[in-house]
Amino acid sequence: MSAAIRGVVPPVVTPLTEDRELDRESLERSLERMLDAGVHGLFALGSSGEVVFSTDARRDEILSATVQAVAGRVPVLAGVIDMQTERVIEHTRRAADLGADAVVATAPFYALGGEREMEEHFRAIAASTELPVYAYDIPVCVHRKLGVELLVRLGAEGVIAGVKDSSGDDVSFRQLVIRNREEDAGLALLTGHEVVVDGAYLAGADGSVPGLGNVDPAGYVRQWDAAQRGDWQAVSEEQDRLTRLMRIAAADVTATGFGAGVGSFKTALRELGVFTTNQMPRPVAAQGEEAARRVREILTAEGMLGA
Amino acid sequence: MSAAIRGVVPPVVTPLTEDRELDRESLERSLERMLDAGVHGLFALGSSGEVVFSTDARRDEILSATVQAVAGRVPVLAGVIDMQTERVIEHTRRAADLGADAVVATAPFYALGGEREMEEHFRAIAASTELPVYAYDIPVCVHRKLGVELLVRLGAEGVIAGVKDSSGDDVSFRQLVIRNREEDAGLALLTGHEVVVDGAYLAGADGSVPGLGNVDPAGYVRQWDAAQRGDWQAVSEEQDRLTRLMRIAAADVTATGFGAGVGSFKTALRELGVFTTNQMPRPVAAQGEEAARRVREILTAEGMLGA
Amino acid sequence: MSAAIRGVVPPVVTPLTEDRELDRESLERSLERMLDAGVHGLFALGSSGEVVFSTDARRDEILSATVQAVAGRVPVLAGVIDMQTERVIEHTRRAADLGADAVVATAPFYALGGEREMEEHFRAIAASTELPVYAYDIPVCVHRKLGVELLVRLGAEGVIAGVKDSSGDDVSFRQLVIRNREEDAGLALLTGHEVVVDGAYLAGADGSVPGLGNVDPAGYVRQWDAAQRGDWQAVSEEQDRLTRLMRIAAADVTATGFGAGVGSFKTALRELGVFTTNQMPRPVAAQGEEAARRVREILTAEGMLGA
Amino acid sequence: MSAAIRGVVPPVVTPLTEDRELDRESLERSLERMLDAGVHGLFALGSSGEVVFSTDARRDEILSATVQAVAGRVPVLAGVIDMQTERVIEHTRRAADLGADAVVATAPFYALGGEREMEEHFRAIAASTELPVYAYDIPVCVHRKLGVELLVRLGAEGVIAGVKDSSGDDVSFRQLVIRNREEDAGLALLTGHEVVVDGAYLAGADGSVPGLGNVDPAGYVRQWDAAQRGDWQAVSEEQDRLTRLMRIAAADVTATGFGAGVGSFKTALRELGVFTTNQMPRPVAAQGEEAARRVREILTAEGMLGA
Repeated sequence: MSAAIRGVVPPVVTPLTEDRELDRESLERSLERMLDAGVHGLFALGSSGEVVFSTDARRDEILSATVQAVAGRVPVLAGVIDMQTERVIEHTRRAADLGADAVVATAPFYALGGEREMEEHFRAIAASTELPVYAYDIPVCVHRKLGVELLVRLGAEGVIAGVKDSSGDDVSFRQLVIRNREEDAGLALLTGHEVVVDGAYLAGADGSVPGLGNVDPAGYVRQWDAAQRGDWQAVSEEQDRLTRLMRIAAADVTATGFGAGVGSFKTALRELGVFTTNQMPRPVAAQGEEAARRVREILTAEGMLGA
Repeated sequence: MSAAIRGVVPPVVTPLTEDRELDRESLERSLERMLDAGVHGLFALGSSGEVVFSTDARRDEILSATVQAVAGRVPVLAGVIDMQTERVIEHTRRAADLGADAVVATAPFYALGGEREMEEHFRAIAASTELPVYAYDIPVCVHRKLGVELLVRLGAEGVIAGVKDSSGDDVSFRQLVIRNREEDAGLALLTGHEVVVDGAYLAGADGSVPGLGNVDPAGYVRQWDAAQRGDWQAVSEEQDRLTRLMRIAAADVTATGFGAGVGSFKTALRELGVFTTNQMPRPVAAQGEEAARRVREILTAEGMLGA
Repeated sequence: MSAAIRGVVPPVVTPLTEDRELDRESLERSLERMLDAGVHGLFALGSSGEVVFSTDARRDEILSATVQAVAGRVPVLAGVIDMQTERVIEHTRRAADLGADAVVATAPFYALGGEREMEEHFRAIAASTELPVYAYDIPVCVHRKLGVELLVRLGAEGVIAGVKDSSGDDVSFRQLVIRNREEDAGLALLTGHEVVVDGAYLAGADGSVPGLGNVDPAGYVRQWDAAQRGDWQAVSEEQDRLTRLMRIAAADVTATGFGAGVGSFKTALRELGVFTTNQMPRPVAAQGEEAARRVREILTAEGMLGA
Repeated sequence: MSAAIRGVVPPVVTPLTEDRELDRESLERSLERMLDAGVHGLFALGSSGEVVFSTDARRDEILSATVQAVAGRVPVLAGVIDMQTERVIEHTRRAADLGADAVVATAPFYALGGEREMEEHFRAIAASTELPVYAYDIPVCVHRKLGVELLVRLGAEGVIAGVKDSSGDDVSFRQLVIRNREEDAGLALLTGHEVVVDGAYLAGADGSVPGLGNVDPAGYVRQWDAAQRGDWQAVSEEQDRLTRLMRIAAADVTATGFGAGVGSFKTALRELGVFTTNQMPRPVAAQGEEAARRVREILTAEGMLGA
């Protein structure tokens, strides 16, 4: 298993053309921009990367384009998100074939189950691959929380290499950091909550997976660097700025959930000249001109667009 | 669009061999037993049919075996359950190719969204196929409830042909029955809650989709026939018996959710000589001997097994 | 313990004057109207009776006025709803002093707990009083479900006399009816869901506690009588009418929850000449003229107001 | 309105005698211990202070004993927690009479409502008193989240003086800190999550309300002092220790919720010689010897008890 991933690892937002094909040029532009900013890894096919909106062919296309563009400069993690074990194992095999450096899997979902099924799920995935497996804790999507003791046990046994925590449960994350250290479980612990990265770093997180890092990768890298040198005042001030920037997610008052959040990232990236369109996958509508106006205002207020 | 489906339409439980291959012989035996009992339709690849545990190849295998075995004697509905629109459309195309008579789709899930996305989702699915589309309302799995007005509107416009209601919300179902009639929306309204079918029929449901109907198809058919002739006392007494039989779902005290419910259907079908094994798909464990003993007790108490 | 309560037992809606005093005349008019219609009991200080909006003095005032007006013609149940045991016991003592025939208590709420605390709660209440205790199962308010086995055990031991089920879980209610019979637990099982009373009666419920019964007590009594004589067609048709009438709860599009539901009952009762105002307790706003217009339309459509 | 409260403000745990009377001596001992440690305020009748388990007489007894013992050395905040407005106003009046320096109120609960009712609730409370009103955001108990914009608006208008955030939603808290500053709303923002206080301070919280601060007030004061001088490494290390100490909340494996958390604080305080018993209010059971043994182990491991 490769060395643990540390630092800023944005979940790559997927640009589409107007007719909903993969916009490979925009993708390459965005990846290059994040690499230039100094990100430490890239997470393709995450929730923000519209993995669950994609056919298998589209998943392959996105991952393959990402791996080729990144060309080994940083590790590429691949989301293998699906409902239950057999499909996740299929995606894992494809990810390995296409050159991913690690895979990221959630707890099983849709069918109801308990911790026994969660554990068996991760064990079966890990047994099927040579790649490091990251557990993606995202109860808002899968409606199940990965327990601290389960994660630490799977880490100590080498089943999983790390955790992407998007649980919104900072109390549990705090315990996870400490238990990981106590048990020497070796988990790379990454937070997925882009507006509270400062607290996660202070608590001992190994990195972050900020969706907003597609829009402002340099900000998140500055914040990481400040944390590395112990300048917590700077870490927190950068967070304040990024938290204000995150208000783009409320720009489209007609949208909810994915259409509001990832929709606003796409709108911002279009306004910044990185993406060509802000098209969204079916059944989600692209943001309109009113939302785009608000996004521009926020980008301007935070110094990312000329006034 | 074909005529609306009425009556008892069991969601077909999928038998596996010990090494988790499709057990085609057991499947055919079970289908034949349900057809003999007089069921009015069969729903392949439903939640109970382990659709979300299946690869695409396995989905094809199950549906194709079912369609061939049924051979047109009753309509076969096919579950096309997946996270978002594009994948559901892929499954819908396969279902049509393999000879299904209708498809059954849930609201989109995993990614967060609102009613706008639900509506667009069903419209896109319907636009992609000639087959009738049934909306599957199952918030316990997708964590979203399909609204009465949305369903009635989609019905009136011919987007959907019916609803399989597994919402557990009998208040909403009651309103749906009345609104469907008032708006002449033409929806076939089927309840998925096997222990309260009597109330649903009295309220005006067009049929039921009882998982327990795999175990006791004759009971559900008797109940339907009693309802058709207005013998409500018999409808309710049959329900009492079926509700007691449903206690097999609590037989495995070590299991939760799918492993407890569908697991017990498989155990019962094995004890009844219909299935060869009670094997479950990964990551779910098959029920053990202790659970099987309890299942036999319940089957015996309800007169389905000799003492 | 007095004989079990059977039949229609409306939860009494509390009329207020414009300055939010108890409108005793309207209350007496409403009680008399329900008694004239033939209701079999009355439930004062229920959720619809604004018990949680009332000071202790107001609780006493409402219960005392109700007991005096009813004057023994039917049993009066008194809600003793509060957060934890000691306060519920205080309310129980007051209810006994003021002449209630039974008390109705929910599971403890606000502080988190488990089944152990629920059981001890009901045992402590019962130990404190000679009055029969009814368990009020209302997870939408207390965020906890009373388990079937707990209720049956408490019934068999004589701790509780019955259950008012407002759980919205018809599957669980169905099991409760059967288990109560099997264990001879003697619980009076009343449903609180006014739009699915037909199914509950068919399943074997001993009665109903319909908030809408304040508006149309005669309808619910007709329905009960039809059920007693086994005329299920009539039971269901009456339910259809009552379910349409229940749409008054959606008349105020600016309101949610209590303000929408009980607010519309008050508006309807004012339009019917029973209440003098539709005033609501703080912090809830009374419904406005637009909502009242819609309520009148619905009352007219269902034949309760002249066109 | 008095100056805003800053620093460490433990919610005072209430000691009981074996027969569930207020143990005034233990209470005074505990208050004195917290004052000696340098806490900046004390919050009586909070959730941890068993406010919802208390009769009105008991509430008065607790608050009055606390105010007298504290004797003006630090501000005393009083919980006025109850279901709806009228009762909260009654408690507020009593709190003022008994000498509290501020009151703390949650959103209304039990009856369903929306933001309109929440806003009116806080306005009515504030209009009824001269005391500063703190909003207590605790969705785990009241099942409603106070919105950032509502809080900031009520702060800017002087309706509320601060917020005790026990929402578990660090993303929302981060936005609240920034919006409070941007709008100059003047809210004192206190976090109630004892294991993530470090992140909250770094984000700009004005203080903390740690239940665990009853057990280790000196630790929380040291942490606050470190934050004041910008020594974030020390803030975080102290948090690590306190987070490990918080494991006492899992010591009683037979308990859940309040009985597990506050139960363990009482057990720890007894083991530390501060409380005489670890008795709990009905319907909650006191922790047994097995739990006490685990609590002692944890206290010993963290250096609070001699080995």
